[in-house]
Amino acid sequence: MEHRGLGWPRLPRLLELLAALAVQAVRASAVAAASPDLCLWPMPLSVQTTPRVLHLSPDNFFFSHSSTSKAGPSCSLLQEAFRRYYDYIFGFYKWHHGSADLRVGVELQQLQVSVILDPECDTFPKISSDESCLETFSQLIYQDFYGTFTVNESNIVDSPRFPHRGILIDTSRHFLSVKSIFKTLDAMAFNKFNVLHWHIVDDQSFPYQSVTFPGLSKKGSYSSSHVYTPNDVRMVIEYARLRGIRIVPEFDSPGHTQSWGEGQKDLLTPCYNGKEPSGAFGPINPIWNTTYSFLSKFFKEISTVFPDEFIHLGGDEVDFDCWASNPEIQDFMRDKGFGRNFKKLESFYMQAVLDMISAINKNSIVWQEVFDDASKLMPGTVIQVWKAEDYTQEQSKVTEAGFPVILSAPWYLDWISYGQDWKRYYAVDPLSFEGSQEQKKLVIGGEACLWGEYVDATNLTPRLWPRASAVGERLWSHKDVRSLEDAYRRLTIHRCRMLSCLYRKQTPARGKLLTTSTQTLDWLKPEG
Amino acid sequence: MEHRGLGWPRLPRLLELLAALAVQAVRASAVAAASPDLCLWPMPLSVQTTPRVLHLSPDNFFFSHSSTSKAGPSCSLLQEAFRRYYDYIFGFYKWHHGSADLRVGVELQQLQVSVILDPECDTFPKISSDESCLETFSQLIYQDFYGTFTVNESNIVDSPRFPHRGILIDTSRHFLSVKSIFKTLDAMAFNKFNVLHWHIVDDQSFPYQSVTFPGLSKKGSYSSSHVYTPNDVRMVIEYARLRGIRIVPEFDSPGHTQSWGEGQKDLLTPCYNGKEPSGAFGPINPIWNTTYSFLSKFFKEISTVFPDEFIHLGGDEVDFDCWASNPEIQDFMRDKGFGRNFKKLESFYMQAVLDMISAINKNSIVWQEVFDDASKLMPGTVIQVWKAEDYTQEQSKVTEAGFPVILSAPWYLDWISYGQDWKRYYAVDPLSFEGSQEQKKLVIGGEACLWGEYVDATNLTPRLWPRASAVGERLWSHKDVRSLEDAYRRLTIHRCRMLSCLYRKQTPARGKLLTTSTQTLDWLKPEG
Repeated sequence: MEHRGLGWPRLPRLLELLAALAVQAVRASAVAAASPDLCLWPMPLSVQTTPRVLHLSPDNFFFSHSSTSKAGPSCSLLQEAFRRYYDYIFGFYKWHHGSADLRVGVELQQLQVSVILDPECDTFPKISSDESCLETFSQLIYQDFYGTFTVNESNIVDSPRFPHRGILIDTSRHFLSVKSIFKTLDAMAFNKFNVLHWHIVDDQSFPYQSVTFPGLSKKGSYSSSHVYTPNDVRMVIEYARLRGIRIVPEFDSPGHTQSWGEGQKDLLTPCYNGKEPSGAFGPINPIWNTTYSFLSKFFKEISTVFPDEFIHLGGDEVDFDCWASNPEIQDFMRDKGFGRNFKKLESFYMQAVLDMISAINKNSIVWQEVFDDASKLMPGTVIQVWKAEDYTQEQSKVTEAGFPVILSAPWYLDWISYGQDWKRYYAVDPLSFEGSQEQKKLVIGGEACLWGEYVDATNLTPRLWPRASAVGERLWSHKDVRSLEDAYRRLTIHRCRMLSCLYRKQTPARGKLLTTSTQTLDWLKPEG
Repeated sequence: MEHRGLGWPRLPRLLELLAALAVQAVRASAVAAASPDLCLWPMPLSVQTTPRVLHLSPDNFFFSHSSTSKAGPSCSLLQEAFRRYYDYIFGFYKWHHGSADLRVGVELQQLQVSVILDPECDTFPKISSDESCLETFSQLIYQDFYGTFTVNESNIVDSPRFPHRGILIDTSRHFLSVKSIFKTLDAMAFNKFNVLHWHIVDDQSFPYQSVTFPGLSKKGSYSSSHVYTPNDVRMVIEYARLRGIRIVPEFDSPGHTQSWGEGQKDLLTPCYNGKEPSGAFGPINPIWNTTYSFLSKFFKEISTVFPDEFIHLGGDEVDFDCWASNPEIQDFMRDKGFGRNFKKLESFYMQAVLDMISAINKNSIVWQEVFDDASKLMPGTVIQVWKAEDYTQEQSKVTEAGFPVILSAPWYLDWISYGQDWKRYYAVDPLSFEGSQEQKKLVIGGEACLWGEYVDATNLTPRLWPRASAVGERLWSHKDVRSLEDAYRRLTIHRCRMLSCLYRKQTPARGKLLTTSTQTLDWLKPEG
């Protein structure tokens, strides 16, 4: 392995970049300038930058596979990543300036990529995957005073603090076009998020088009154009895969299922007013066999459509009133000896669904109530902690019981407020709860949640970014990376970088551009 | 005047629409369907709709000037409005469906527009102008079950409750492109706002390119591309004029002027640490003659660039500490007998600027501190009430002293919070303060303010609309139009209408589209 110029000595798991440096060392002393401010986001584990600068020319530079790599040109994932990052680095420049001569100096012509473990060229990312070093490389590059693309000789050691770094989007309260989801995935990759938690259906609408049960979206979607066809879903999964992002679908039940009932009769619980059905329906009916035969077929489909090893089963906010009003359920409760404890009925249902998922070789994630209300729970079930009150206590309890945790409670980004709330998200430490080292290891990561009650395609991107970037760094970087001042400085630059990639076709701003606001995204004045 | 079909019996001031109805009364009975829900926004003074429906065909319908009108085809303002509203009504349809046959029924082929007062064809709108009836007409049109453009025979009586209905944008904290401002003006017209209060410069940047003092923006803007050239300003003024919108520029002083100091030396007050200048600068220096000769030339330019009769002079949040630290100012205070009362110095400055504006035949608007801190104030100065605390008391005081009021205090839209805050804005009544009928008459209107600390082109539109629509109706409609339920119903439709006009090139959604969320803008499911 060569380590001249740009080293990547301990690359996590998947990729290794080798800088096979070229050539013209003309007037090298003239370009050994002061090291620029590094504005990496999220901050890698360790960065050493030397004053020695290397230049990159759009016409000469290319990514390639090292001869020692386990991947080669047939690896679609890497080829796509090479193309994408070449474009991020130079694309904007080339469109607006044509080609350019390189100034004299040391030129970096080639960045060799070496894959040291079996690459996921044609398979899907796993919780253990990571291919974000190209992102870091692209962030190291800057245009110097003369406009030349420049990178300082650097050594980067990097790996994420937590393996599960997610964004939750909600396509039920408001439909989000596939295009909007793509944009979200692009922005996630810029921030090294690796999980899109797709809360795809809920009470309000059922946009997932099921092949087995086409009536669900036919009746339950907002309209025939507000659905995700099988092809749409495939496109989202593939777009994510190429960016190292897993898609974890959530089909929340037994609550939050009003829209399911539109297309699937005899699924929801009929609520009663005294001895008469009220005409309203409650959560999924947990006492009918038909419920489970439906769910079994449904989740079998889901398990083949979504390649990820995890399915999110929801299980939050189950309203017991409707169940309690229903005479058939009252009888069932008596027969089972549940008394008036509807948590037992909830657990009865969840356990059946968890068994179902286990039987089709998938793992389950559930919201915290499933843990809170269960007397026993299938080991390995991942618990997502979302209730803001006493969430560290909840983390203690869940991990003490030996269950893995995803933390979301402090990161509900739909709860907007005035000012730079990213600082609050940034200040959280996911391991600040009381517990042993073993317990802390059970925290596999976290998710920034953007629920859709007041979010749609018109405000999705500016509401999510760069606020979610704060969560991105918290989940990626070392726990001691906590300085708000330094984060502010880097985040302003990172925001500009995101903007130039996400809104490439818009009018560019010239010169070095900063922002003073990190809740919004726009070009601003250089400070000082 | 003909009043067959669509009458507009008492149109405010400028326009009158005459429905010169045509022709084929084939199977007229078949189209005398039930009156549809009227979803007008803001609600006109009175609306009477009959079940008799008229159809419009994109191929046959046109706006024209009535023979009794004071305006004719040479009136650019009306010609442009005809083109624009034809496009709003049919444009989307024509782009996506080509032309269409009209179903049998009564066809409305022509809408004649009669101007009954002197039109503002080539001049600028005034505080007394109004040409928003085309907006109402376009809102009356709907596509029936067969997709035919339909309007019910209606009589509309309309006029605004307040003459000053404004939106404040802030292009200093974040620069807003001319394109973003155009979009804002479009949305304003949909909501019958008629004043864009352009808070164009502030501490953070000075994007206004002055011909007299080019250094101001050269040094004070974020970059050379973050400026409004004379041509940009002209374009904004003309775009607004064609929509019946006045541009009121604000050049806030003596505070909020840090960016002025970059390009104009010897304007800001040097602050002192004890006996030495600290190197920092405070508000504009109110004791130098050079200050006033600069301002006099500057505002002379402003008065020619901006045609509106009003200039906003700011005057808010003056920090007295720097003035107090400065020995020269201490001497001046002593000489003038001001003691340590810096409010007197502030008033001394403001009075001089107000005199200057008066001398160039313009009227002034100022923030409430100018009234609060003055012992006397030039009569007719318009006071903008912005402090949220006790704003009704402030309205009482200002109107008791005989000054006109613009209310903004309850409508700071940059102060975001979770949920449907539009309801809070809607619930305000601008005349809820204690005072006589004479005092109430001094409230000329209000403004929704969207300060720019956390707003730029990426989030301007979804942050402003439809939240500002609530303020729009409050300032336009009768005080008794207050039902939140009815407003919600109409606003969801109005939001869709705005979206289809503002984002015309995006993918259309099919069928009848509603939203359940009125803080965001997206297509949603039909209710029920």
